Amino acid sequence: MKDFEHGGNIYNASGQAEDWLDMSANINPLGMSEAVKSAVLSGIDGLIHYPDPQARELKNTIAARYNLNFNSIITLNGAAEFFYLFLNTFRPQQVLIPVPSFSEYERAAKAAGCQVHYFTTCTEANFNIDFDKLLDTVRRENINCLILGNPNNPTGTLLDSADVLRLLDAVDFVVVDESFVDFLGDDYSVRQLIRTHINLIVVHSLTKFFAIPGLRLGFAAADEGIIKRLESGKDVWNVNYLAQKAGVAALNDIQYIKSTRRRLAEEKTFFKEHLQAIEGIKVFEPTVNFVLMKFKTPHIAGKVIDELKRQKILVRSCGNFRGLDGSYIRTAIRSRQENIKLFESLNDIIRR
Amino acid sequence: MKDFEHGGNIYNASGQAEDWLDMSANINPLGMSEAVKSAVLSGIDGLIHYPDPQARELKNTIAARYNLNFNSIITLNGAAEFFYLFLNTFRPQQVLIPVPSFSEYERAAKAAGCQVHYFTTCTEANFNIDFDKLLDTVRRENINCLILGNPNNPTGTLLDSADVLRLLDAVDFVVVDESFVDFLGDDYSVRQLIRTHINLIVVHSLTKFFAIPGLRLGFAAADEGIIKRLESGKDVWNVNYLAQKAGVAALNDIQYIKSTRRRLAEEKTFFKEHLQAIEGIKVFEPTVNFVLMKFKTPHIAGKVIDELKRQKILVRSCGNFRGLDGSYIRTAIRSRQENIKLFESLNDIIRR
Repeated sequence: MKDFEHGGNIYNASGQAEDWLDMSANINPLGMSEAVKSAVLSGIDGLIHYPDPQARELKNTIAARYNLNFNSIITLNGAAEFFYLFLNTFRPQQVLIPVPSFSEYERAAKAAGCQVHYFTTCTEANFNIDFDKLLDTVRRENINCLILGNPNNPTGTLLDSADVLRLLDAVDFVVVDESFVDFLGDDYSVRQLIRTHINLIVVHSLTKFFAIPGLRLGFAAADEGIIKRLESGKDVWNVNYLAQKAGVAALNDIQYIKSTRRRLAEEKTFFKEHLQAIEGIKVFEPTVNFVLMKFKTPHIAGKVIDELKRQKILVRSCGNFRGLDGSYIRTAIRSRQENIKLFESLNDIIRR
Repeated sequence: MKDFEHGGNIYNASGQAEDWLDMSANINPLGMSEAVKSAVLSGIDGLIHYPDPQARELKNTIAARYNLNFNSIITLNGAAEFFYLFLNTFRPQQVLIPVPSFSEYERAAKAAGCQVHYFTTCTEANFNIDFDKLLDTVRRENINCLILGNPNNPTGTLLDSADVLRLLDAVDFVVVDESFVDFLGDDYSVRQLIRTHINLIVVHSLTKFFAIPGLRLGFAAADEGIIKRLESGKDVWNVNYLAQKAGVAALNDIQYIKSTRRRLAEEKTFFKEHLQAIEGIKVFEPTVNFVLMKFKTPHIAGKVIDELKRQKILVRSCGNFRGLDGSYIRTAIRSRQENIKLFESLNDIIRR
């Protein structure tokens, strides 16, 4: 994979979608809910109009669902848009990124001309951050912006509010990417700290949990002053009309939300146990809908990836994650049937 | 209207779309073609996947339709995205904008921290640019970036290749926004100059001509080096899956393209003649699907706008266009029936 390439690329060289079991992107295996699909369908005729430049219906729905003020929300063309928008708008000079993590943090920071520092977490600590050491680095390098995942992609590690509070005291901006937190629930989010901390920005994706990555939808929550500046750094139509409609329908679909969490909770245990039972794989504790695993060598992991590809299963090589190497693979937790298919293939490949 | 507010806002205070005859946005009155609608419909199930990060099928279609190289194209979440992306990526220090023009040029330049200069064109010259004077300003103010519309919104003025060539010799970047040029055809575009001039960027919207502003879609064409830097300044999924599908279908719908141009050519003459026949309105020559007009005073124009609103017709007040005032109104050229409705209302209002 190239430096900043991601999972979920199901397209062939000419750009046509191919028929994969895609475990390289971390998308809800329940697929689009009927409510979302129907919102998209009934929205098609509305495409002849511009989207609401203030995304009022969507923002009101987000505000209600996540207990936020309307003016503390900016809606996004996917969560990834946030990092470019934020870093271009505020241009923090020294950005620190604990790694391994989502590579768009680094790519966006470099695009905005920031100096980027890395804080490497390690396998032995299950990639948990040593916050004392992190704060030492912050002070030593005069860091003014930190970007962290909660849970972090691809390691699954979670942040503790107490640790985030320490960071908030130390730097100008703390960005917490909570693009996967919906798979766990609000108790795991640090979102509410924005009420007391004007230097915290929490980023949220709505495409993974609601299975609409093709539609692009996310939001960020922060103090009104920050949101106002972010709004002025982009055009007003960044979130398309169908994404706005789909977002409203999705967030009101309580049944789908509950059902996803319940099924994932079951599947996570099942997945971990079965994966651990396969020889030669070290499994890192999954927290949400993906699992990081390590093979003995990059060579073995590479063979596994190639062989899975031949069986039309896509998993994510972690060779291009800073702080990991080709011996790591990330896979989504999918439906029971799809997960079993993966285990059978893995067992088969490894026994050979 | 607020400083940077645009036409096409059909939403009420709670963000619900209302049933207007919307002549404040310049959208093709033919509406979405069947081909586009069907591409969107059949794409819905694909929303569970990420869009192609390289937008290959779409870029290949754009390349073929507009006679461009694949690597000279960047696809956009609407043309408006371009100005923020470009100005944040290249950060030209001194930007000159002939005005009146699309206000996103100014808003994006300010967001990127550029110093913004204006070159005011005047009513008496029908808003045509005096290029000798413009070049004087360029030299005097050490301008390194120019942003111009071709045709220009809201004045409809067109650029001549010879004049653009003079500008290309004088500054680091010339951005030509051709978001409405499809209504006229390729002969009116300066697009092919990118082959010989590495400092020209041509921006193109696909939402106005193909009546899909809700879906967001545009592209820019420039030298490969510029495109590469622009690509690194945004995430790879900025153009949603349905917009990519719709764009391919739209650009292949030759019948729709021809039919739009033929009908607009007829309607333009009809519109101009009937509008000029109404007392107290000065009409500026329409080149594409919108017309700029001037009333005697801002007070009269304001009354006209309010009265049209009561009749559920939206037109665009030009009071917030730098270089114009509230006595100017812009309106889209719509279908014959809709245009007649506007004339009848205008006649009625003015006679009272």
